[in-house]
Amino acid sequence: MSNPILVEVTRGSRVESCHRGSVAVVDGEGESVHALGDIAALVFPRSAIKVMQALPLIESGAADRFGFGDKELSLACASHSGEEGHVALAADLLRRAGLDERALECGCHWPSDSGVARVLARQGRSPGALHNNCSGKHSGFLCTAVAMGEPTAGYIGADHPVQVRAKAAIEDLTGTALGEEDSGTDGCSIPTYAAPLQSFAHGFAKLVSGQGVSAERARAGQRLIAACMAEPWYMAGTNRACVALIEAAPGRVFVKTGAEGVFCGAVPELGLGFALKIDDGAGRAAEIATAATLAHIFRDRDPDVAGAYDALARKTLKNWNGIVVGELRAAQ
Amino acid sequence: MSNPILVEVTRGSRVESCHRGSVAVVDGEGESVHALGDIAALVFPRSAIKVMQALPLIESGAADRFGFGDKELSLACASHSGEEGHVALAADLLRRAGLDERALECGCHWPSDSGVARVLARQGRSPGALHNNCSGKHSGFLCTAVAMGEPTAGYIGADHPVQVRAKAAIEDLTGTALGEEDSGTDGCSIPTYAAPLQSFAHGFAKLVSGQGVSAERARAGQRLIAACMAEPWYMAGTNRACVALIEAAPGRVFVKTGAEGVFCGAVPELGLGFALKIDDGAGRAAEIATAATLAHIFRDRDPDVAGAYDALARKTLKNWNGIVVGELRAAQ
Repeated sequence: MSNPILVEVTRGSRVESCHRGSVAVVDGEGESVHALGDIAALVFPRSAIKVMQALPLIESGAADRFGFGDKELSLACASHSGEEGHVALAADLLRRAGLDERALECGCHWPSDSGVARVLARQGRSPGALHNNCSGKHSGFLCTAVAMGEPTAGYIGADHPVQVRAKAAIEDLTGTALGEEDSGTDGCSIPTYAAPLQSFAHGFAKLVSGQGVSAERARAGQRLIAACMAEPWYMAGTNRACVALIEAAPGRVFVKTGAEGVFCGAVPELGLGFALKIDDGAGRAAEIATAATLAHIFRDRDPDVAGAYDALARKTLKNWNGIVVGELRAAQ
Repeated sequence: MSNPILVEVTRGSRVESCHRGSVAVVDGEGESVHALGDIAALVFPRSAIKVMQALPLIESGAADRFGFGDKELSLACASHSGEEGHVALAADLLRRAGLDERALECGCHWPSDSGVARVLARQGRSPGALHNNCSGKHSGFLCTAVAMGEPTAGYIGADHPVQVRAKAAIEDLTGTALGEEDSGTDGCSIPTYAAPLQSFAHGFAKLVSGQGVSAERARAGQRLIAACMAEPWYMAGTNRACVALIEAAPGRVFVKTGAEGVFCGAVPELGLGFALKIDDGAGRAAEIATAATLAHIFRDRDPDVAGAYDALARKTLKNWNGIVVGELRAAQ
């Protein structure tokens, strides 16, 4: 059985390409509220669960010790575009813990936004580890290690307490024991673990509903999610889909993208979490499918919000001369 | 019925993403030699049929009049990376016809290769129409119009003789009448027409076998294909898959990529043409599937060549620290 087509790409009057995938919307008790495709299949959540990975930053007291506000917490959950503001704040977080860029073990890459990369190139500069889209998350890891009195070197290793705590938080929230056979290495070199798609949706529902999770953990999760909703630019960047999807319903919807076509998120007022995966890993499709999922959630509850997400579930495609050639659109 | 999975993307020991698609390998009589998925489905061939669109350049006498050799013909069939050599030769082609960059109607875009774009940015420059990946094809269009005594302005319009001739060549080779309902606008603003996947494979088989096509057209097609095989860099660029796929069997295999996961090609010595389309439009998958298709074609005929394509049908994936995280691999 193949997953259903979630997103179509048109050219002229024809569908040129299509994207299959699966969507799970789950409540705090783990009940499926909306499902498309195989929601029991194992998926690597990648960066879409950075909120889960950042829970120990709050639970350890490190966030308070180092004066993390909304911007700092949002950056600690970020896949940022490597713009000046992201780089400067990540450097500042490290400074608060007595560290600098040299402590980062995430590797370097040119900012994924080609415009941001060209600005850097035009200045005659090359990217450092602070430009890595995960530098905020890694700065949070390092602040936690410092607060706990742990060595900072090797914090990306699966056996380092930083990663052990992150894995334990994911296991707690997903209700899944994560073994070696479920493990892969993420782009930024920390472990990533595959689990059923619906279990990630359930994990976010637990955080926002407070059901099936400790009060302390729910508070930590809600604080991170509130921070990301308040300062979405620090979690993503200029012209990024995550920002548009969060700002379409200010303070009411949280979403976070991950590589290979994953999105996770939550609607706190409804106590719902969601997770989706595009089979082929396409980010363009994951963004459209996320908008369609949120439109579906709000359809009968708040038509204005549903309409805002309907608008984000279609995207006009133009060519190099600005001529409209087709569109990206939700198929479900 | 969904198309089969052609390419898998792994992380750790698991498949993280997958790409479905269809493959048609056809001989000069139109007989299917190898087929995966729905090969009768209509696809937009995009840039994968630039050889067909360049036939009038030769048949009109323009290529000879303006002194086109292998490099020039390869550039006229190119989706190039906008490197210095591509830009300079495209400018030279226009100059031979008494034109310059201002005649190009393809639009401007930053070179798709991010490294090439950054070099341009570092020099404080911005891209012009000559950097457009289609500038060689458009220069060929313009040279043809000049040779035919036609107006050059508006050469991208469906009713301009340049596009009328290109469409007629595609209809002749695919055996398909292309109507308005099959038409879309390509990235460079010329019309693109959807036709059955297998008909594009048949078209390339007709060119290399000489079957079912005029001797003049077969000669023109073979001259273009030979030029692309001799000078693949001008058809693509540094580190491009088209170059690696052509150089794996020098002088024996022609391939050309198109946007949205299309590849077309031919094996002249066998009189075969092929066309493939990844459903979701992913170029990374189309490259792997093309290598796997060529490995299949040569499997029982030339094990060394098959082995060279087997090697190109797997690609190790590394993260920002150079750690191997998984691979792209053919699934069929």
